[in-house]
Amino acid sequence: MKVKDFVWHEGMKVSELVEELGQVGFQSVELAKAKDVIVKMKKDNAKVFLTFTSNMVTSGLRGFFAQLVKVGIPNFLVTTAGAIEEDIMKASGEKFDVGSFDNDDVELHEKGINRVGNLMIDTEGYMAFEDWILGALEKCYAKKKRWSVSELLREFGLMLNDEDSILYQAAKKGVPIFCPAITDAGIGFHLYLFQQKHKDFIVDVVEDFGNILLGTSYDDKKAVIALGGSISKHHAILATLLNGGAEYAVYMTTAHRSSGSMSGATTQEAKSWGKVKDESDIATVIGDVTIMFPLAMSAALEELQEEGLLEGSSVVSRQLSAKTGGEQK
Amino acid sequence: MKVKDFVWHEGMKVSELVEELGQVGFQSVELAKAKDVIVKMKKDNAKVFLTFTSNMVTSGLRGFFAQLVKVGIPNFLVTTAGAIEEDIMKASGEKFDVGSFDNDDVELHEKGINRVGNLMIDTEGYMAFEDWILGALEKCYAKKKRWSVSELLREFGLMLNDEDSILYQAAKKGVPIFCPAITDAGIGFHLYLFQQKHKDFIVDVVEDFGNILLGTSYDDKKAVIALGGSISKHHAILATLLNGGAEYAVYMTTAHRSSGSMSGATTQEAKSWGKVKDESDIATVIGDVTIMFPLAMSAALEELQEEGLLEGSSVVSRQLSAKTGGEQK
Amino acid sequence: MKVKDFVWHEGMKVSELVEELGQVGFQSVELAKAKDVIVKMKKDNAKVFLTFTSNMVTSGLRGFFAQLVKVGIPNFLVTTAGAIEEDIMKASGEKFDVGSFDNDDVELHEKGINRVGNLMIDTEGYMAFEDWILGALEKCYAKKKRWSVSELLREFGLMLNDEDSILYQAAKKGVPIFCPAITDAGIGFHLYLFQQKHKDFIVDVVEDFGNILLGTSYDDKKAVIALGGSISKHHAILATLLNGGAEYAVYMTTAHRSSGSMSGATTQEAKSWGKVKDESDIATVIGDVTIMFPLAMSAALEELQEEGLLEGSSVVSRQLSAKTGGEQK
Amino acid sequence: MKVKDFVWHEGMKVSELVEELGQVGFQSVELAKAKDVIVKMKKDNAKVFLTFTSNMVTSGLRGFFAQLVKVGIPNFLVTTAGAIEEDIMKASGEKFDVGSFDNDDVELHEKGINRVGNLMIDTEGYMAFEDWILGALEKCYAKKKRWSVSELLREFGLMLNDEDSILYQAAKKGVPIFCPAITDAGIGFHLYLFQQKHKDFIVDVVEDFGNILLGTSYDDKKAVIALGGSISKHHAILATLLNGGAEYAVYMTTAHRSSGSMSGATTQEAKSWGKVKDESDIATVIGDVTIMFPLAMSAALEELQEEGLLEGSSVVSRQLSAKTGGEQK
Repeated sequence: MKVKDFVWHEGMKVSELVEELGQVGFQSVELAKAKDVIVKMKKDNAKVFLTFTSNMVTSGLRGFFAQLVKVGIPNFLVTTAGAIEEDIMKASGEKFDVGSFDNDDVELHEKGINRVGNLMIDTEGYMAFEDWILGALEKCYAKKKRWSVSELLREFGLMLNDEDSILYQAAKKGVPIFCPAITDAGIGFHLYLFQQKHKDFIVDVVEDFGNILLGTSYDDKKAVIALGGSISKHHAILATLLNGGAEYAVYMTTAHRSSGSMSGATTQEAKSWGKVKDESDIATVIGDVTIMFPLAMSAALEELQEEGLLEGSSVVSRQLSAKTGGEQK
Repeated sequence: MKVKDFVWHEGMKVSELVEELGQVGFQSVELAKAKDVIVKMKKDNAKVFLTFTSNMVTSGLRGFFAQLVKVGIPNFLVTTAGAIEEDIMKASGEKFDVGSFDNDDVELHEKGINRVGNLMIDTEGYMAFEDWILGALEKCYAKKKRWSVSELLREFGLMLNDEDSILYQAAKKGVPIFCPAITDAGIGFHLYLFQQKHKDFIVDVVEDFGNILLGTSYDDKKAVIALGGSISKHHAILATLLNGGAEYAVYMTTAHRSSGSMSGATTQEAKSWGKVKDESDIATVIGDVTIMFPLAMSAALEELQEEGLLEGSSVVSRQLSAKTGGEQK
Repeated sequence: MKVKDFVWHEGMKVSELVEELGQVGFQSVELAKAKDVIVKMKKDNAKVFLTFTSNMVTSGLRGFFAQLVKVGIPNFLVTTAGAIEEDIMKASGEKFDVGSFDNDDVELHEKGINRVGNLMIDTEGYMAFEDWILGALEKCYAKKKRWSVSELLREFGLMLNDEDSILYQAAKKGVPIFCPAITDAGIGFHLYLFQQKHKDFIVDVVEDFGNILLGTSYDDKKAVIALGGSISKHHAILATLLNGGAEYAVYMTTAHRSSGSMSGATTQEAKSWGKVKDESDIATVIGDVTIMFPLAMSAALEELQEEGLLEGSSVVSRQLSAKTGGEQK
Repeated sequence: MKVKDFVWHEGMKVSELVEELGQVGFQSVELAKAKDVIVKMKKDNAKVFLTFTSNMVTSGLRGFFAQLVKVGIPNFLVTTAGAIEEDIMKASGEKFDVGSFDNDDVELHEKGINRVGNLMIDTEGYMAFEDWILGALEKCYAKKKRWSVSELLREFGLMLNDEDSILYQAAKKGVPIFCPAITDAGIGFHLYLFQQKHKDFIVDVVEDFGNILLGTSYDDKKAVIALGGSISKHHAILATLLNGGAEYAVYMTTAHRSSGSMSGATTQEAKSWGKVKDESDIATVIGDVTIMFPLAMSAALEELQEEGLLEGSSVVSRQLSAKTGGEQK
């Protein structure tokens, strides 16, 4: 393939931009390839694991993840405890603010504002969450005493009512959410307090390992879209490894291979483990997920929509979607 | 400003995507801000320095830089010697290839292929360049003996005929190209050989310092769009510093502030020097320029086109542009 | 403080180098500060959380972490499941290899070699681990049915006999190891298989939240040394946050603040949350932990040894330590 | 080679630490290899190019570079204009300050303090430099009118008298300093003003290309130690490329290969160009040079000293060196 000069034209669509980027060079080539791999995994009917970290749910990607569940992209979600917490906070009406990386942290602390990069979360939001989660746990406990994490998260999702909520959409579509480190956020504290009152209340993380493992089989085509690193990424590729490896893998991360971390581990390295198959379609994009993912994924959605591979009778503009209040499937 | 859930809709335009990114979080917020700052600098009639490094000209951004000159975005370009060389090679018909970061370098060397990240340059292309540059230098020398670098590059541009060439467009539009380290590429070798034959041939880098310095004044509004780091970036902000600092600055880079390098220096740090004014509009975007720049700049062009601020009677699709063979201004 | 020219002298000690680095600039200043903060936290009798990720245990830092436990640096360890697994594999005699980042991954896969950056793990090692862990789980199950993770890891440690093992030293010294995502590695698979046979076997992650929370109090001075990112880092600072924040914090990571990730979150950002106190002693060092940590920590140990603040009657050379077979405390 | 557990012992020397790091993993392995390559290039009598960027001269590495020249490590230096300027400023008594990356830049600007990462330069220092450089240029001009850059820098060095000055030591030892972008700093402005008064004063960058090219031959063994990126790095490897490629190369940088930049270009990529030979000894260390370089280089010096390969009758402690006032060679 030849390098081709990029030229802008009026009214350029996202899909046209991504198409052009495929011949520009460096990460733009990887980004266009990521789009291709995503389209291929869906055409090939692969079971798709989408993984992301908590900070992405702090950001506006949260609604995009919910939309992806709604239109049928992922079959499984894997994330961290903070993501669960913040999705619920937002579904309960909490709004986060855009600030600056250079805000004065001591001053923020005095005001009860918590900083995540250039995003700001009000401490009061955590109090509303506390009320919600304790109520939710009571309801779950009334049903049974021993819960795997994904069962619990499905139950939470059914209690929410927000089109832009990941838990809500996942519960509606029957997409399991795996969260192997469920205690690693405020929710861990609330689970602990609840268990102090109800000693027979058990969160069974081991059972969930079975759920993610049996979610796919050796014979299924498997695919991973891993955004950022952390155990979310590792857990999904571990699950595919144990079932013979993924046919498709897209990694997007700001981390590099040089430190040997999971965050920076490449799709190439994954081949040595059998996490992805030797002959698999893979792409590793180095860059901030808040830009890379909407860009590549929007172009993929465009192509999948043309092919009739998106679920829901119609995928329409945000404005329309907001008015009609969501899916009719 | 509140964080807003990103939602894709069919047929999404680049400008719509960038608009949405402004409320997503992390680097997407900076990217949307970069677009805003670029629009503002043009509306405010600031003199714009656009700086880039050699590898971006290896990539398909080269044609985009040429287009930006054509539609009147930058008033000055600053770059490195490799960029000059490769623009001429491409204008002479040389094609570069898209390969992989993991190609076998010893094998490539045997084949006479030179790797720049995931892009590949054939060694033969350098031979064609040798012929071209020696001829060009003879013509220049016939005119006069002592040349500032920007004069020489203008002369080269006039000898080319390629709509997608930076030197060609810059020469046509009277946009000076500064290249303070002109000897740092194959072109340095050819200049040296030429000077061996013509001892009175002088490339005067000191004179060009005067040219970039006097290109703007204290009273002009000034703006810098610095892509990547290196002396290209430093030279432009040095020029604005000596004239009282820039009102607008956009930096895009993969480097971070932590090592104290010029590549990673932020628009914020520039304030301490007076490189940008204390109250200036600034944005620093961390990420690969091959994605970040087409994305933010295309959205800016869209807005500037609507405002009637782009030069040329019409800016049209690549296909049309290719057919008509360019600008009628 | 003035910048001071670094000059090498013969026989330079690590502690002298780190001292000099304090006035060099950029990350070297942060590194020297990290050493200072570590010394201060021990002098001040703070309760120390040391967190690290799995890949560091793949590396030779594993023996260093064990040594730090032995000489009394950390009061708590927080890590990921892979770290547990590989510590046990090494304690069982498994050797890992140093290779290259550029090894051919398809070829490695055929040979049954798994790559972690430039380190290589033989697939056979996982089989020996399988035997070990199943035996260990039987023994634990015979004692009781419901285990918190840290209890289980203590039990494993008591079954090992390797001076360089983290689990062994931690069990001997009564230092709890927290691992909130215990299922996220091969061990998760083995726990699952075991639970399939013994349905009443429960790994209680919620109980462990109580253990880490009650491990310190509001009144204790608290300190965090977080190596790399991931939930290991987050879990420790969450625990200190809930007890009023840490007085001392050292973060070492290759990640940057720009993406809003936990890995790149700075000690400064932690102040907005109350994870570290406003007036705390903090240092964030950007760089590869395999170099930064031995460098800063060795200099800190030197200083603490002089002050008589290291545990064990004598801390001696590796050779001696190997011969005597460890601590007499 | 096996991964080996790192264990600290009392009084550990830098050379011992680096030895241990060689079997730890990730970048520590590359660091130890860098030390080995440096030792080998000296033993093999290779001609050594040492390249560095301006910010490293802002830092305390400046005195270390001077020391390396003094003991005979590099045969050529390549750097940027800011490095020249700041070395002269420091040799004239100017002191820089260690501050913080988070200092308030607007406030600094009001105080006349310029920030480079966490280092601070007083604006007044530039005024003293102005006086010095104008005087120096007058003296040079009195000798002849046309100067290559390296000749000019040698002349400057002879006017200085500071053991810790790079220009001073290089002039004394006859080590040429190449600076292809000599105008890219305040010094460019002063050269311009001087040339305005003396139109026949010429800084000949083209002639210097010949000087660096002819500094080594095809038959010489050649080696590059490139610290950071920029044209300093590129210029040295270009010079070795044109003479058949280097036998030894050590790159230390915070940049990654992913963006295709010169800063992030690896020693591996250099093979495709013939910049380093296919069978050469190479190491690329990712990390902050202010830590990586003193660490690896000090260990190399130790080994070279033992082998009697350092110049000067004695290399002694900083204290002694300061008293005796330098070399007796």
